[in-house]
Amino acid sequence: MFTYIENGSITSVKGIKAAGIHCGIKKKKKDLALIVSDTPAKAAGTFTLNKVKAAPLLLSQKIIADGNSVKAILVNSGNANACTGEKGFNDALNLQSFCAEKLNINKNEILVSSTGVIGEYLNVPIYKNGISQIVNELSYDGGLDAAEAIMTTDLAKKHFAVEVQLSKGKVCIGGICKGSGMIMPNMATMLAFIATDAKMENNLLQEILKDSVNKSFNRISVDGETSTNDMVTLIANGAANIELKANSDDVELFKEALIDLCIQMAKSIVADGEGATKLITINVMNAESENDADKVAKSLAISPLVKTAMYGNDANWGRIISAAGNSGANFLPENIEISFDDHVVLSKNYNILLDEGVALKILNQYEVTINIDLNAGKEKSTWWTCDYSENYIKINSAYRS
Amino acid sequence: MFTYIENGSITSVKGIKAAGIHCGIKKKKKDLALIVSDTPAKAAGTFTLNKVKAAPLLLSQKIIADGNSVKAILVNSGNANACTGEKGFNDALNLQSFCAEKLNINKNEILVSSTGVIGEYLNVPIYKNGISQIVNELSYDGGLDAAEAIMTTDLAKKHFAVEVQLSKGKVCIGGICKGSGMIMPNMATMLAFIATDAKMENNLLQEILKDSVNKSFNRISVDGETSTNDMVTLIANGAANIELKANSDDVELFKEALIDLCIQMAKSIVADGEGATKLITINVMNAESENDADKVAKSLAISPLVKTAMYGNDANWGRIISAAGNSGANFLPENIEISFDDHVVLSKNYNILLDEGVALKILNQYEVTINIDLNAGKEKSTWWTCDYSENYIKINSAYRS
Repeated sequence: MFTYIENGSITSVKGIKAAGIHCGIKKKKKDLALIVSDTPAKAAGTFTLNKVKAAPLLLSQKIIADGNSVKAILVNSGNANACTGEKGFNDALNLQSFCAEKLNINKNEILVSSTGVIGEYLNVPIYKNGISQIVNELSYDGGLDAAEAIMTTDLAKKHFAVEVQLSKGKVCIGGICKGSGMIMPNMATMLAFIATDAKMENNLLQEILKDSVNKSFNRISVDGETSTNDMVTLIANGAANIELKANSDDVELFKEALIDLCIQMAKSIVADGEGATKLITINVMNAESENDADKVAKSLAISPLVKTAMYGNDANWGRIISAAGNSGANFLPENIEISFDDHVVLSKNYNILLDEGVALKILNQYEVTINIDLNAGKEKSTWWTCDYSENYIKINSAYRS
Repeated sequence: MFTYIENGSITSVKGIKAAGIHCGIKKKKKDLALIVSDTPAKAAGTFTLNKVKAAPLLLSQKIIADGNSVKAILVNSGNANACTGEKGFNDALNLQSFCAEKLNINKNEILVSSTGVIGEYLNVPIYKNGISQIVNELSYDGGLDAAEAIMTTDLAKKHFAVEVQLSKGKVCIGGICKGSGMIMPNMATMLAFIATDAKMENNLLQEILKDSVNKSFNRISVDGETSTNDMVTLIANGAANIELKANSDDVELFKEALIDLCIQMAKSIVADGEGATKLITINVMNAESENDADKVAKSLAISPLVKTAMYGNDANWGRIISAAGNSGANFLPENIEISFDDHVVLSKNYNILLDEGVALKILNQYEVTINIDLNAGKEKSTWWTCDYSENYIKINSAYRS
């Protein structure tokens, strides 16, 4: 049992303060966020699989791998500090140390993260001024400011929190995230920072986060690209005084809520994808394996032809079946059934049931669900994507200014 | 040694006749092509790896797999005869038989191929009328008409021929092809039909074709999609009275020419890609393996962010290195070097040498080469792609009419 908190965010979690300010990395908009836990928190993280990894990401990855407890997360937008070599890495270390000093904590208790243009060095003096300022602006309701400060060309702040009823009481899970966008043309970056006041060991926290990310952030696509800076972190500060043990019913309840929260965050990223006019849910059913279901769903989610058809309100099931056929999954093409929401457009043996009028009504909606029944087994997967509009091209072909 | 023949096509090859007509599958444009060899020809083919395969493709694939000799190739545009189930398969068989009767040959000597809208049945009576008419229009210079009749939304006819000097005389290789496009929004289809008057056994022909396709048609991308109808066939009718034996120098000379011809055809498809304004060559050098080089080149060739940057004349090497990092190839990111034509924009250890003025001049050209040196080994690969413009979205989001 869990319920969403209205206007919830990472600071809905007990003992978590945050702030978001403009310090000068961007021209006008907020560009620096700081999240602080009153007490040391256990930390888990998942990081980009791109071979090219940004300096702050490598730093944060090591802190979590070493099993350090975490007290703060420092994030800037406007500059990704990626492909900046040794100097970039030293800059990240330098800023981490400076922030630790200002917060009077150990530098290994600070996760750092960046998003924005790549191949440019951070302006360290401006960044340090920002840190000196932001440590004084931390508050228990600063989550929305922090959510705003990590945005790049995101059009909306993204923040969620749920309250979960466990056997011994309530815990909260709250987070902020950002999606694909850029100040200057640049690769997209997906960041999410989540906190909970539940208490749990590192291994369990990491396991739960990994599983939740696999069922949410790893099942979305705006353009099939994975950035150098992508990361999702979860910190657990135990402020609710409720401890979760592995294999307990409470862990299952907690996980259910965390997965749902991550899905809401992931969907908010897709809905705000560059040029997106539609949120598309892709359900693949009755696959031979979960892996096969994933392959088919992913193939549709990244298919330019499926995504442009959705933009054009075109019930083009041919592109859908072709994308499924290219996925590498095992199934018999003649057994495929496809529907848009409840309207079956293709049943077995290529029996075409498409009613263009009905389909157009469905496709005209903001949210559309594509269901693909492979009739090849019992496994399933759900992915989320957005449509492809001329604006995606406009946004990404504008010359860097 | 080989030289291109001006306005060459499949009928530049001795003993090959062709025709292209309008029979009524499309409203106005040519929609039916027939290629005929005076004598039975050995045949080789490569076919789509999409699990969903069109009826005519399955039929042609079987003819070639069975080692049949081939005397004719019947191709229509405007309707793909894909996802049409048993009826579609029977229609293809029926038309093949009808054409065999008209040509007075065995039906298993006819390859059939279709491209166009999917999920719709062929109009068999109209198609048969077309066959009755086209058999009377075959000529030894009908290659360009045939090239025109297989077009969908291709803007240009695609036809090439080379003359190859071998130890015992000259042979010719000529072909026609079509790229991605559609009359009604639909998946793209890539077709190429090649003939030669050299003589050779089936196995050798198949081996040479496979190798040539791997180095050409399999290294292009417009949007990363593989159609249900893609096929490349090569027929060898021996009309030049020159036989090629496996492992001979002549085979190497022939293969060199065939690969070059296939590359020209493949590049013509990319250059005419939907919405394309630029032809982009991607050279990956010094990879650990050829497979790794291929992975990196493909990752760039299908990357929407790289392709939109090219459209915007943006020297965005960050997107290039990120796409390389996502390819799964093995290399050290800090060892990557990137250049546009001769202008090195990134050398080892993230040493940024980009001169925006010089880069803009290069990127403004119609043809641009991106070179990526991985400094990880000695293998290489070249791919070709086009840029991504708003027109790609416009073409593919227009509602079926």
